[in-house]
Amino acid sequence: MRAVVLHGYGEPDVLKFEDRPEPVSRDTDILIEVHATSVNPVDTKVRKTGGGAARALPLILGYDVSGVVVRCGSRVTQWKAGDEVFAAPNLFRDGANAEYVAIDARSAARKPVSVDHAMAAALPLVCQTAWEALHLRARIQPGQTVLIHAGAGGVGHIAIQLAKLHGCGVITTAGRDESIAFCRDVLRVDEVIDYRTTDFAERARELTNGKGIPVVLDTVGGEVFLKSLDCASVNGQIVTIVGSNTADRGRGLLYRNVTLHYEFMGIPTAQEIEPELPGQILAGIANLVDSGLLKPHVSHRFPLERVADGHRQVETGHTIGKTAILVRP
Amino acid sequence: MRAVVLHGYGEPDVLKFEDRPEPVSRDTDILIEVHATSVNPVDTKVRKTGGGAARALPLILGYDVSGVVVRCGSRVTQWKAGDEVFAAPNLFRDGANAEYVAIDARSAARKPVSVDHAMAAALPLVCQTAWEALHLRARIQPGQTVLIHAGAGGVGHIAIQLAKLHGCGVITTAGRDESIAFCRDVLRVDEVIDYRTTDFAERARELTNGKGIPVVLDTVGGEVFLKSLDCASVNGQIVTIVGSNTADRGRGLLYRNVTLHYEFMGIPTAQEIEPELPGQILAGIANLVDSGLLKPHVSHRFPLERVADGHRQVETGHTIGKTAILVRP
Repeated sequence: MRAVVLHGYGEPDVLKFEDRPEPVSRDTDILIEVHATSVNPVDTKVRKTGGGAARALPLILGYDVSGVVVRCGSRVTQWKAGDEVFAAPNLFRDGANAEYVAIDARSAARKPVSVDHAMAAALPLVCQTAWEALHLRARIQPGQTVLIHAGAGGVGHIAIQLAKLHGCGVITTAGRDESIAFCRDVLRVDEVIDYRTTDFAERARELTNGKGIPVVLDTVGGEVFLKSLDCASVNGQIVTIVGSNTADRGRGLLYRNVTLHYEFMGIPTAQEIEPELPGQILAGIANLVDSGLLKPHVSHRFPLERVADGHRQVETGHTIGKTAILVRP
Repeated sequence: MRAVVLHGYGEPDVLKFEDRPEPVSRDTDILIEVHATSVNPVDTKVRKTGGGAARALPLILGYDVSGVVVRCGSRVTQWKAGDEVFAAPNLFRDGANAEYVAIDARSAARKPVSVDHAMAAALPLVCQTAWEALHLRARIQPGQTVLIHAGAGGVGHIAIQLAKLHGCGVITTAGRDESIAFCRDVLRVDEVIDYRTTDFAERARELTNGKGIPVVLDTVGGEVFLKSLDCASVNGQIVTIVGSNTADRGRGLLYRNVTLHYEFMGIPTAQEIEPELPGQILAGIANLVDSGLLKPHVSHRFPLERVADGHRQVETGHTIGKTAILVRP
């Protein structure tokens, strides 16, 4: 099959379009003919440095897939050849930057019928991340105020919609005119903070009468993470999808009874912990999309042979929503 | 009334036994004739430095009470004069190192009848801490392995019993022969790790076939906290009652999808958040004590005028269970 292969870590031009054998399937796997995948920040991190975990080279990136089942393992009962599915492939196996990908059958769900494969492939990783962060970790409640950083980004634009669907008030941060307009006019966020001109932590405290924010989703890290810790309320929940450290904030967190969740969606299932969970979440996501309640936003599309350009786009940090990769255009 | 008063921060001899006016009661308060209180590490921290929060001097320490209701505020319906109650007084008002203390009526529960006031006063702060840490934060599940540090300590010896009552397997750490014997023979912990001779993180991984520990309760901080982060499993929960920082462990926590809870029991209620919660927890604790299922351990008793000796005892770090202060012997 044709695939984009990583033989060594580095800049986007290490990604090589070449022939590879079909993926090895397990008896709990489905083999999927890939129609579309996407680029997530985790692709660019693994490409650059391996992403901090032991991985054997060469490897194939691409941790989203929308496509058609072509073969089922002997223990797979819920799918048959011809089914259209979408899923987030295992972070520690070969991904979907290829004509075929093998994934655990339980991690897939029926592809939403109302969107094309490129739109469907924009969903799995960011939706699982946002769903797990808001519903399984922070356990958001109706009426709560949720601060979601980088609201125009991949995880951000989905998290905002999920929080609003649950009856939460949403505050978001953005730093470019285009991103601010997207958050305000397309996502219809209650309060968009322009972080170039406004201290978001101060503004967040002001908006909550000094009480601070009960739920913060940090997708940025660094100073944004630390200031998020500072503006969390008593009993506040902070979910970070970046591996930031608390610096010297521990005592403050104790005095506000704060909980800090480190969320990395693919880790448990990669270790066969709760293998049914991703498919269940994505089945719900497909329902939301087909009901018109959740809309992925794809701002860039590249063919598979130009996946390196997709990486370059994601690495600008300026993508509205997602960057899709078309494998069978 | 007679009280032990703090006029300035420092060593135990700053605690002065003297006459003070009766506490000011609010209309949601009960005024309690104090029979016993206890010394917790938070008393010694506030005495030494103020404990990191703004407090007006002079103040009265003592964040546990067992005693008798003498007067009820106009909005109090659930108590009457003569009722025997126990509670953890508000951390930001005058405490129970005195003949009388005023507390929010909702934070109290009926005193367990099967134990004396000194035993009852050993319970509130450590039981609320352990209950909130295990049940409200980590949401322990039957069959889970829970690592509880300093199992012979105030919070530790209660947390061990609560985790066992919930069907958890318990591992604890201790570092003196007397503490180890108490954990093994009195608390009947499944596995007591002598931290003088054994690396607890290594042993914890060994006991879980390399998977790590799903729930850790850290009552120690510093290196113990950092090594606790290191031995938490995928989806692991760490509860710390000390304001420790993550140092450089953020990335590892992300790669194991870990949640880190900072637990300080008195903070929400001091801010009128969930004011019913402490009383509800303590009502359950009283039932457990009167059923013989939960046993506080009081190793030292001092009269109120010797509360400074109680502080010295707690500051050794070598107390088995609790240090009680008898106000009406």
